[in-house]
Amino acid sequence: MNVTLKGRTRHYRTVTFDARKNSVLLIEQRLLPHQFKIVAMPDFRATARAIREMIVRGAGAIGATAAYGLAQGARAFRGTNLAKFSVHIESVQQTLKDARPTAVDPVNAMNAVRAAMRAGTTVEEQQTLALAAAEEFANDDVRHCQDIGRHGVKLIRSNSRILTHCNAGWLAFVDVGSATAPLYAAQKAGVSFHVFCDETRPRCQGATLTAWELAQQKISHQIIADNAAGHLMQRGEVDLVIVGSDRTLGRTGEIANKIGTYTKAVLAKRHGIPFYVAIPLSTIDWNMRSGMEIPIEERSEKEVLGAWGAPPGARGKLPGLYVRVSNPTSRARNPGFDVTPPELITGIITPEGIFKPDQLWKNRERLGWSGTTAVKNETCVKKI
Amino acid sequence: MNVTLKGRTRHYRTVTFDARKNSVLLIEQRLLPHQFKIVAMPDFRATARAIREMIVRGAGAIGATAAYGLAQGARAFRGTNLAKFSVHIESVQQTLKDARPTAVDPVNAMNAVRAAMRAGTTVEEQQTLALAAAEEFANDDVRHCQDIGRHGVKLIRSNSRILTHCNAGWLAFVDVGSATAPLYAAQKAGVSFHVFCDETRPRCQGATLTAWELAQQKISHQIIADNAAGHLMQRGEVDLVIVGSDRTLGRTGEIANKIGTYTKAVLAKRHGIPFYVAIPLSTIDWNMRSGMEIPIEERSEKEVLGAWGAPPGARGKLPGLYVRVSNPTSRARNPGFDVTPPELITGIITPEGIFKPDQLWKNRERLGWSGTTAVKNETCVKKI
Repeated sequence: MNVTLKGRTRHYRTVTFDARKNSVLLIEQRLLPHQFKIVAMPDFRATARAIREMIVRGAGAIGATAAYGLAQGARAFRGTNLAKFSVHIESVQQTLKDARPTAVDPVNAMNAVRAAMRAGTTVEEQQTLALAAAEEFANDDVRHCQDIGRHGVKLIRSNSRILTHCNAGWLAFVDVGSATAPLYAAQKAGVSFHVFCDETRPRCQGATLTAWELAQQKISHQIIADNAAGHLMQRGEVDLVIVGSDRTLGRTGEIANKIGTYTKAVLAKRHGIPFYVAIPLSTIDWNMRSGMEIPIEERSEKEVLGAWGAPPGARGKLPGLYVRVSNPTSRARNPGFDVTPPELITGIITPEGIFKPDQLWKNRERLGWSGTTAVKNETCVKKI
Repeated sequence: MNVTLKGRTRHYRTVTFDARKNSVLLIEQRLLPHQFKIVAMPDFRATARAIREMIVRGAGAIGATAAYGLAQGARAFRGTNLAKFSVHIESVQQTLKDARPTAVDPVNAMNAVRAAMRAGTTVEEQQTLALAAAEEFANDDVRHCQDIGRHGVKLIRSNSRILTHCNAGWLAFVDVGSATAPLYAAQKAGVSFHVFCDETRPRCQGATLTAWELAQQKISHQIIADNAAGHLMQRGEVDLVIVGSDRTLGRTGEIANKIGTYTKAVLAKRHGIPFYVAIPLSTIDWNMRSGMEIPIEERSEKEVLGAWGAPPGARGKLPGLYVRVSNPTSRARNPGFDVTPPELITGIITPEGIFKPDQLWKNRERLGWSGTTAVKNETCVKKI
């Protein structure tokens, strides 16, 4: 989406590929919102490090980064021996996979690249096919988000006030984002609206990333404390809630998303405010039979006990100065995600259309169910 | 309550009086939780400044501070001319009132001191009566909190897990606190339990003040992000919620309290978890007919856009270093309070017993209704 630097507005993706230099180009997300910088990863090891160190984060974005990283590794191979090339590719893939071992998107993305490569009969052909497949994966990610926007835009009426939680924006994908896709589509259609961004403690992805996105895109918005949403709903100041999902249970319609999502759904239900979840098909888990089975990651206490930010006058310190807010002798609990049951969800916005949560299973063929999807029962930690 | 300094545990009140030095002694609350310090206010102007600059905060605590400040001012008068003394007292009272012009507790507290003084026929007698009345006001505040504890302790069973929001602890009163009173009483009775403290963004009084109180009192507790309470309730990890109230509508049973209280009440209702509000009688407003009439203060955006804390290695910086957490080009909404309707409140714990919210009016004679209580319809901003 748009980024304005020194008065000049340009369109960016979170991840692109420089074929001439065989480099993966990434937005250095750890500097946001205080500084915008594109960094070049000169080889697949650097690309893996970027995934591990969260220069890039978010399901779609790390999937595309891994796909490009695999193509990058393939293109770095010198020689024509297919057997040696294959050993090399295995090692590249393993390195990229190990960067975020619990994430499912890099695995799926790299499998797609590998499958495409099989059509090539020489190293050179396979190298070409790898990059083409990575580009296709990235373009598909963008197209899926645009499709979410196309369906979701119908929910946004003139002067709507929309609440969102955490960051399911373009920074978490290659472009456009999931929960933000309907917003960007509405803006394009000339509809005026206002967004409340939950700050989303403890990591504050709403106050940092989503607010930065919306500001760059010149969309009217305000950051609120997570505590304030209930009051705004009570006073009639919220018309619609749109959030993302890290894992969507295809059988039950439950969604697991950033901690606090469930609370917003409970509040929305009480006030009769529509609550929508925007997802790419890759987040759907067709195997799990109950949201209560989803293991919820307990994250570092440090996140709750303090905050990261820019001290007065300072800019771009990496990753911001940490201050201890809370009582120094107290400890914290920090569950990272929560589960929202289907009865609180008005609809799930997918690239294939909007579905009631209990209609996912009925429409599973259309929604990418293969009958054998192997999403493992791992800790729900696909993005921060 | 207890404070341990250099290994030595002592009992403190938030405000006391040194009669020999004619000084008001206060806990410097702006240094908490990073440093504990008692500061002496040598004259009534310094005491007024302490109220204005929030060295002391919380309804009960500033009431007692104003009462002591008035006695302090009275005792500083030299001479025997009652008319001149009376002019002096008026000026002292005005100075103390102006320190927090919207707060009702200092006004009530000083009126009580003035009423007691009228029994004296000389300046000296009135000076003596003023201090005795201030001491009585402070002792009454403690006793009322102890009475809240005596009634509320019945709600706490062995191994209860209790959620609280913001700080309605002893730091907001002279001692014991309102929402914390049942906890301290349960501890005294040998009941073991665990407390979850909402961090209470944006000012984080839960993470700073309540957590500090509980740590000093050696009560088992953990700080949580405000976002996490819903998840803990969903997983059956919360048995009881106790919060305070800044304003309690005697006619309707609605309560106005720190932003986020309403959300916790909605969540508790959904999960069938008892939700109690602990109050001294002074918070009851017998006039207002609807909580929706309560004007909700919109506080500074700065609170939401960043956080105050101690940088690594630093201690006791006043009032902590501010870091900008959020996107620098975004703005915020910051309502300071919200209103919880009676249908979400299991009971209101008062010094006179526990009442259903709709039973306050029926019991108004017992609950301090004078028929003429003049709580003004001012912005709900009695404590931070």
